[in-house]
Amino acid sequence: MRTTQDFQALIDKKIEGFCRKNGDSNILQPVNYILNLGGKRVRPLLTLMAADLFSDDIEDAVYPAIAIEIFHNFTLMHDDIMDNAPLRRGHATVHEKWNRDVAILSGDAMLIQAYQLIIKTRPECLGEVMHIFNKTALEVCEGQQLDMDFQSRSDVTIAEYVEMIRLKTSVLLGGAMKIGATIAGASESDSESIYNFAIDLGLSFQLWDDYLDAFGDSSKTGKQTGGDILADKKTFLMIRAQEKASSKERETLSQCAAGTINGQQKITTTLDLFKALGVDAELQSEVERYYNSALQYLDRIHVAEERKTHIRQLALALHHRQF
Amino acid sequence: MRTTQDFQALIDKKIEGFCRKNGDSNILQPVNYILNLGGKRVRPLLTLMAADLFSDDIEDAVYPAIAIEIFHNFTLMHDDIMDNAPLRRGHATVHEKWNRDVAILSGDAMLIQAYQLIIKTRPECLGEVMHIFNKTALEVCEGQQLDMDFQSRSDVTIAEYVEMIRLKTSVLLGGAMKIGATIAGASESDSESIYNFAIDLGLSFQLWDDYLDAFGDSSKTGKQTGGDILADKKTFLMIRAQEKASSKERETLSQCAAGTINGQQKITTTLDLFKALGVDAELQSEVERYYNSALQYLDRIHVAEERKTHIRQLALALHHRQF
Repeated sequence: MRTTQDFQALIDKKIEGFCRKNGDSNILQPVNYILNLGGKRVRPLLTLMAADLFSDDIEDAVYPAIAIEIFHNFTLMHDDIMDNAPLRRGHATVHEKWNRDVAILSGDAMLIQAYQLIIKTRPECLGEVMHIFNKTALEVCEGQQLDMDFQSRSDVTIAEYVEMIRLKTSVLLGGAMKIGATIAGASESDSESIYNFAIDLGLSFQLWDDYLDAFGDSSKTGKQTGGDILADKKTFLMIRAQEKASSKERETLSQCAAGTINGQQKITTTLDLFKALGVDAELQSEVERYYNSALQYLDRIHVAEERKTHIRQLALALHHRQF
Repeated sequence: MRTTQDFQALIDKKIEGFCRKNGDSNILQPVNYILNLGGKRVRPLLTLMAADLFSDDIEDAVYPAIAIEIFHNFTLMHDDIMDNAPLRRGHATVHEKWNRDVAILSGDAMLIQAYQLIIKTRPECLGEVMHIFNKTALEVCEGQQLDMDFQSRSDVTIAEYVEMIRLKTSVLLGGAMKIGATIAGASESDSESIYNFAIDLGLSFQLWDDYLDAFGDSSKTGKQTGGDILADKKTFLMIRAQEKASSKERETLSQCAAGTINGQQKITTTLDLFKALGVDAELQSEVERYYNSALQYLDRIHVAEERKTHIRQLALALHHRQF
């Protein structure tokens, strides 16, 4: 039986080969750069795990898995331009290290390269895999668009926020697993279940991210606690707090947003308010709800329980993470 | 027998349907906008003409043809950001009308949409069509990269310049025709010939563009004569002039580049120099050479001569154009 480490080794080897083939042309250098910033390769891992759930032969899923990782890094390269982000995983972003135009163009090339890998899919699955990939890719762009739209809006609802993180994060996890399942010959109903598992796991993951940013232990997360608060980000906590706040509490939140209350004081005041309003507990309960829903989808899949071990372990590790 | 107008009507109808389906979401509005700026749809026309060369049934080539037009407009949307272009076909560019981030993201969505159309290709051709499309798309990006690289170099050779315009312009014409031919069941050798025809026609077209910019009749071209000179663009004429110039003439060119000689004076001085050095005649001869080479490739294709009528007419019209 293959271990998660086997999957990871396979992914690393293929990405290494991909980068070697890219060489150091002006347009592909930044592609290799971003791929080697040390991401965790969760998405291709999910593709291989989903394939492994339904078949002993996961070889056919390796190129599509890599395609998804390339696609994911393409979105990071372009998102970093839009977010004016100076750093990605502790290193200069592509548009900082080179320039904006290089980041646009190398990103475009990267998206095309993802398709070059996707077409290595077995011909009899190619149509279906391309269909899932295209739909997913377009939804990820929509998610980024919503995220940008929300920055200039003050009336974003929780439903809208959840839809945004579903599109921006979850659908790619779902697409990654569904593609693996499809290649491994899963039934339509099992493919749908693994997709929904990944969607809900992704939502749980992303909402937990909101929680850790506000209440996590910075010695474990490696990030300043309250970073989202300082950046005035519309997270689950902030949206719900604004909905539940009394007029006096709303006034406090306005002072934080306007900078009258700022720095560490802004973080402390906001966190106290989150707790007073109970939105921290609400968030925790949503994290649990999506996590349990994900597990229910996993339960529904018609394969022997021991085949699900890897996926259960990964889900549990993501669920209990403090970083 | 179908006429060129029939092809154009078919293309217009499909693009109209595509735009209608896009609706007016924030991310797809700019897609519809750029598609309706009134391009001539040469590339999808070439796909249909190439299909028509080899088969009476061109229906299967329509979606891939539209995919190529969508891809082309995606490159325009992103190139316009990189070139800081305020106008496209007389209208505000997407990044001007909306903003940079919208132009990046809608362009990305557009590239994905091109693939959504490509996968409507008949399954038995899909792999080959995707292969041609991916290779072409990546080459177009490389062409744009070279074009940007050249802006900061002073030692660009004619061979490099021709390679750049081959990648930036010709390969998409070649890919458009080869995809049409492939779908229509052309032999490998005929597919190669139609590809090479389009490559050389494209080079001839693009070099003639350089000529018209310098020596064209602005009442016909609708552009200021000498626009490339004013913008210090490295065209065939400028590169060859710099290669052939005496040290005194080189000095004059330097004064033009430095702005010591500027405006209408800069244009007149440079054009006089082009003529004195005979680079205008050299360019005309290159335009003819590529045009004739294109026709030779067309001659080699094993179909009845009357099937080639549309393509010959289009080539001739492009060759003799004054605008």
